[in-house]
Amino acid sequence: MTEKIEQILAHNKKFVESKCYEKYLTTRFPTKKIAILSCMDTRLTELLPAALNLRNGDVKIIKNAGGVISHPFGSVMRSFMVAIYELGVEEILVIGHYDCGMQGLDTSKIMEKMLARHIKQETIEVIRSCGIDLDLWLKGFDDVETSVKSTVGMIKNHPLIPEDVAVHGLLIDPETGALTLLA
Amino acid sequence: MTEKIEQILAHNKKFVESKCYEKYLTTRFPTKKIAILSCMDTRLTELLPAALNLRNGDVKIIKNAGGVISHPFGSVMRSFMVAIYELGVEEILVIGHYDCGMQGLDTSKIMEKMLARHIKQETIEVIRSCGIDLDLWLKGFDDVETSVKSTVGMIKNHPLIPEDVAVHGLLIDPETGALTLLA
Repeated sequence: MTEKIEQILAHNKKFVESKCYEKYLTTRFPTKKIAILSCMDTRLTELLPAALNLRNGDVKIIKNAGGVISHPFGSVMRSFMVAIYELGVEEILVIGHYDCGMQGLDTSKIMEKMLARHIKQETIEVIRSCGIDLDLWLKGFDDVETSVKSTVGMIKNHPLIPEDVAVHGLLIDPETGALTLLA
Repeated sequence: MTEKIEQILAHNKKFVESKCYEKYLTTRFPTKKIAILSCMDTRLTELLPAALNLRNGDVKIIKNAGGVISHPFGSVMRSFMVAIYELGVEEILVIGHYDCGMQGLDTSKIMEKMLARHIKQETIEVIRSCGIDLDLWLKGFDDVETSVKSTVGMIKNHPLIPEDVAVHGLLIDPETGALTLLA
């Protein structure tokens, strides 16, 4: 048990005892029939729902570094399958943001930091020899608008996404929450 | 432009004009040095941050259906790499929840729903012939506690996760937000 976990559990005990959860009660079906793919960025935790007027129960939210899809049959696309076929989602929003950590990620610098944290060079070589392209995996993207458009295209053209599902690309300002709809 | 997008953009315009974003201003570095992997469930959008006392700027949040890791070199594990090596994350929390849509997911029923939404049987056969195991991909898990523990193990044993990163498994009640720390 770490200090961070102790603090979280102490808060949680009070939260439940005071019935603070009552205002969040809802069902697992998204009222607005929307699924959102966005970034894990700290600035979006509360800002994104507030800036889009999303309350508990409104939407499904999928998040990772950059709000990207790494594989057409990976966990993000599976999430969309469950959202659409099991939970009635009709629209998908891909929301990238300016000043994203995935923009211009420097693979060689991450490798240096790994070595400094006692990951062995030998381990990295073994991973490479297993056919894993670490440079591609840690590459990130050059431009967030291009990345969002490419992700939107990947979803629209996925063979298991029904044609009547609308897919939109948007950018959000991580400070003001201002949205821009991409054409 | 759909009705849903129009409503979101109309709210967003007011949100920005009224400077509602001011109370969320923060940096991209997670103050609490924590990254969380959890589920896309609608009930967790506001409840999870509230139940753990997380504010904008505190943590990185990664979400997908079930809060799972599909591949050791997929988008979730890459997100942890960025969180740890670029953004100073020291602890990882994997938070599953009771009554999850990924528990007992019925692949054959999803396939039926796909066909009903005009996905062709032929398309499904072509995907299978490309070596994609659709049944495995859409399988979900039998038990959320086992799933969380397995995910925690996958992170702890990942060759590129530094040994000093603490990884915890927890379960959250999607109605009350009550947390249980798994041993």
